[in-house]
Amino acid sequence: MGEIVTAAMVVIGDEILSGRTKDQNIGHLADILTAVGIDLKEVRIVADDEGAIVEAVNILRARNTYVFTTGGIGPTHDDITADAIARAFDLPCDYEEKAFRMLEEHYAKRGIEFSEARKRMARMPEGAKHIPNPISIAPGFNVENVYVMAGVPAIFQAMLDALLPTLKVGTKLISVAVPSPLPEGTMGGALGQIQQAHPDTIIGSYPKYEEGRFWTEVVVRSRSEEALKAAKEAVEAMIDSLMKRK
Amino acid sequence: MGEIVTAAMVVIGDEILSGRTKDQNIGHLADILTAVGIDLKEVRIVADDEGAIVEAVNILRARNTYVFTTGGIGPTHDDITADAIARAFDLPCDYEEKAFRMLEEHYAKRGIEFSEARKRMARMPEGAKHIPNPISIAPGFNVENVYVMAGVPAIFQAMLDALLPTLKVGTKLISVAVPSPLPEGTMGGALGQIQQAHPDTIIGSYPKYEEGRFWTEVVVRSRSEEALKAAKEAVEAMIDSLMKRK
Repeated sequence: MGEIVTAAMVVIGDEILSGRTKDQNIGHLADILTAVGIDLKEVRIVADDEGAIVEAVNILRARNTYVFTTGGIGPTHDDITADAIARAFDLPCDYEEKAFRMLEEHYAKRGIEFSEARKRMARMPEGAKHIPNPISIAPGFNVENVYVMAGVPAIFQAMLDALLPTLKVGTKLISVAVPSPLPEGTMGGALGQIQQAHPDTIIGSYPKYEEGRFWTEVVVRSRSEEALKAAKEAVEAMIDSLMKRK
Repeated sequence: MGEIVTAAMVVIGDEILSGRTKDQNIGHLADILTAVGIDLKEVRIVADDEGAIVEAVNILRARNTYVFTTGGIGPTHDDITADAIARAFDLPCDYEEKAFRMLEEHYAKRGIEFSEARKRMARMPEGAKHIPNPISIAPGFNVENVYVMAGVPAIFQAMLDALLPTLKVGTKLISVAVPSPLPEGTMGGALGQIQQAHPDTIIGSYPKYEEGRFWTEVVVRSRSEEALKAAKEAVEAMIDSLMKRK
């Protein structure tokens, strides 16, 4: 069934958990990873708390090909991601020379003070590699299989674009959606049988509730085009047959 | 500082992790819990996988007052939440009599077959209490401190509304936002000092990037109105003083 590459995401920030900011990065990362052939297995949203970040990153990096984090890499006291990642890997965290020089030059050119706060953005776990930030210069970074990126959506997206060509990808999980006017309760039994008969596919059923009516989106996923096609045809035949019975 | 009541959320569903469906429930739950005085500490999005659900629920219920789950309680083969919750609590999972009768009557009235698939929606861990579903009847359920709700946003919201008056709430974390034209890098040092001087508050700094310009939203949170006011005034005075220096 091809190679499987998995990922997890850690969203870091009290502002998401309080509802003040609505996350926009989870859906974007999910879309992009699916498109390139990396399976997103789990997402955790944690507080600006070093222990919480370390726990999430250490568990998830041990069981996934990649871990992506967003948030907490800015210049203020509540930006603790660099220290947390360093602690997760038991590495010292200090100013990284190249990042420091890039930022120093960037602010000097613009006549902006290179304050202690701004210097914090050059701090990384020892040996971390940069993830370029074309928007506001301060780089994200990468330690082993963990990729640390900004929480501001425009910057996160730009960092991810820069990162993507360097990642190993797996065989794409392709999918096809079959809309059904039938509610889940009518198709459920037959759909379960189709899933059993097509073990190389993952069949999902998603109830939709719009304007007071239910309909169902059946989604068939597979790494094999043939298996996908066979299961899709079985779903369509099942829907046709049940519609005729109505 | 008043009583603290905490919660975690588990979002269950392959469709969120694949990006096909964009979650709308996390932001809603975060808003509602903040409004009533329950601190949302962590959110996990997991796949339609029994092991993943059991792991998340068991870890989170042990360290929070409440756990709320969304998704996976419908009639189809990929709706495995009831079985997973039963396994998490080591309880048998079977048809619950009252739910079964409610659903039987509901479908009989409408001349709709009470299929094996629909019967699945009456399955619950033994001893679970109902969470009413005013939209499509099939109830959510509650075992100890875990509340299992639908993933369809309209139904999730209705279930949460029904549930809310029964929950214990803590002293509200109140918050105030101070918008600042200054970038984080300019205020960062001073803001860190204000945080240290006001330990009964949590001060967050959120960089905003709009139309090519950065600005910053400083958010002060506290369970004490006095502490909130004092820290807010300190932030405002700091911004004024830095603006004059410019």
